[in-house]
Amino acid sequence: MSQPEALPEPGAQFLAEIREQPAALRRLLEQRAQFVDVAARAPDGIVRMVAHGSSDNAASYGVYAFGLLADQTAIRDSISLTVYYRARLEFANSTVIALSQSGRTPDVLEYVTRARRAGAYTVAVTNDPDSALAEAADAVLPLAAGAEHAVAATKTYLNTLAALALLAGELGGRGDEVAAGLDWVAGALEGDLPLLERAAAAMAVPFASVGRMFAIGRGPEFATAREIALKLLETCQIAAEPLTATDLAHGPVAALDPLFPVWAVATDDESLDLVVEAAARIREAGATLIASGPAANAIPDAQYRLPVPKPPAALLAPLLSVVPGQLFAGAVARAKGLDPDRPRGLSKVTLAR
Amino acid sequence: MSQPEALPEPGAQFLAEIREQPAALRRLLEQRAQFVDVAARAPDGIVRMVAHGSSDNAASYGVYAFGLLADQTAIRDSISLTVYYRARLEFANSTVIALSQSGRTPDVLEYVTRARRAGAYTVAVTNDPDSALAEAADAVLPLAAGAEHAVAATKTYLNTLAALALLAGELGGRGDEVAAGLDWVAGALEGDLPLLERAAAAMAVPFASVGRMFAIGRGPEFATAREIALKLLETCQIAAEPLTATDLAHGPVAALDPLFPVWAVATDDESLDLVVEAAARIREAGATLIASGPAANAIPDAQYRLPVPKPPAALLAPLLSVVPGQLFAGAVARAKGLDPDRPRGLSKVTLAR
Repeated sequence: MSQPEALPEPGAQFLAEIREQPAALRRLLEQRAQFVDVAARAPDGIVRMVAHGSSDNAASYGVYAFGLLADQTAIRDSISLTVYYRARLEFANSTVIALSQSGRTPDVLEYVTRARRAGAYTVAVTNDPDSALAEAADAVLPLAAGAEHAVAATKTYLNTLAALALLAGELGGRGDEVAAGLDWVAGALEGDLPLLERAAAAMAVPFASVGRMFAIGRGPEFATAREIALKLLETCQIAAEPLTATDLAHGPVAALDPLFPVWAVATDDESLDLVVEAAARIREAGATLIASGPAANAIPDAQYRLPVPKPPAALLAPLLSVVPGQLFAGAVARAKGLDPDRPRGLSKVTLAR
Repeated sequence: MSQPEALPEPGAQFLAEIREQPAALRRLLEQRAQFVDVAARAPDGIVRMVAHGSSDNAASYGVYAFGLLADQTAIRDSISLTVYYRARLEFANSTVIALSQSGRTPDVLEYVTRARRAGAYTVAVTNDPDSALAEAADAVLPLAAGAEHAVAATKTYLNTLAALALLAGELGGRGDEVAAGLDWVAGALEGDLPLLERAAAAMAVPFASVGRMFAIGRGPEFATAREIALKLLETCQIAAEPLTATDLAHGPVAALDPLFPVWAVATDDESLDLVVEAAARIREAGATLIASGPAANAIPDAQYRLPVPKPPAALLAPLLSVVPGQLFAGAVARAKGLDPDRPRGLSKVTLAR
């Protein structure tokens, strides 16, 4: 009798896909000509990004990428306003960027169809260039991350950040600089991953009993805080809420206590002082503090630190800062006996409205 | 010897200000001429709302108010992009609406100063028409809520919703309809408050041991979910995260279990089916479900219901739907021995960056 095929170890896919991120990033860079083409066709108006879940977290980054690289107002647009409430907004001179790993998110698809009919230039950023979303849009930018099997997204998130940075760079005439920076990030991540894996695994066990956390960041790194919080929710069943460093002080700080750890993303840019000030408030409340990001060592009193390399441009830091959070979520899930490849109640393609 | 003055009962101010909301709403309506004037001066471009905390929750409502009443794109703009990162966005043809109860939020003030210099039409919506923010803006719309003493905002939140609805109504030529609707809301709330107070108090005690919750809503009621979650964080030290009904399915549903109650805001509009579908997912996960809003009774299997009257226009429902959440937060805080008038670590005017 033949042995039944061994089931993969829980979280094996999730970890393999985290490790594959440098290669995925380099594959995206091979698509650069398509970004140049889309940038040449985009009208000079506002950029409307539409997405859910991890893709929507990446859109938070897009607000800064388009604002800083291309002087353009980019918004995470309301999907429901157009799709369900049938608002009659002005779409002429809008570039719509629809972010969907699967290309099958129903209301994102419906939004693109309506926006295109109303005169928007529509771009699908997706890991499946044959998807319904890709067909519905004027143009497609492939994520080129390779098939992603774990339910919790990792390499498609990283490549979505990269796609937004690259498109914004091309729009602002800074494509060479951004492409070189992304290539640097791929190399730095490759070099640092083994160390980060060991560091995240070493600190995971005491967090198996944690029920709630905050994740804070500001500016481009607010996307990182959102994505790390989502990984913790999805894979570890930790109620993790993302907050800007400032919004923490507008109410939520009152809920902190020693059983309520906070993850702070710190980067060497104009937001660092705000994050340092928020970290002081967190420590005053007695909460455990984990610092990650290129400036993790600038946060005084953090009990745990997961620093990452400092990229040539601060705007690219979120591609590195998220990785310790991905690894930590995987390690805590393993410590809790959960399988990050197949979280309870989730499927890879979310068709929920 | 004279007796020392008795300290007010914990939460007395918070409750008094919740009860004062119908009167505060009527005071706002007396300012209508100023809304007509601002609407006449606003350029025909995008509306950029800037705020933190409860005021930012109200801005989530503004996206729908301006979209549906005035066919205008309104965004919760990034403050940090302009104030800290010094992006060079195009502000001509933008109307900036700065929402700050105190009129003293430092980065909102700085944003208004920069946006006005760059050509935006700037409007301060504030409870203090003599504040620095009011001085910095082209125009002021007074909230007229009367002095608010409890740290956790209630009547200023409701009046901020009303101010956004009224301005959007004037911009869309529907000011009479909105003003009449707001007057109806004031009357309905006045009539229903005693009943809602008793219902919220009756269900509060078992929630004293709850550490985490989600609050879901969609469309205009997403603002309500955000504001109820913030009240629970501020006054009850419950880690409550707001989610759209759809985003719940994109990850967070995996964290639900019977110790993780969910508050669902249900209203009679195009989003109701989405909230009903999300409620079914929540009950499948075994989580306790509380339904509020005009359509609370349309949510099957909710263990607790706090319905409110159905307003003449669905868009005005958020002014009613939030009130059971305010009352519930106050009742849970009392059950936990906390003082919602003075939550630990917060002050009424947040000067944090």
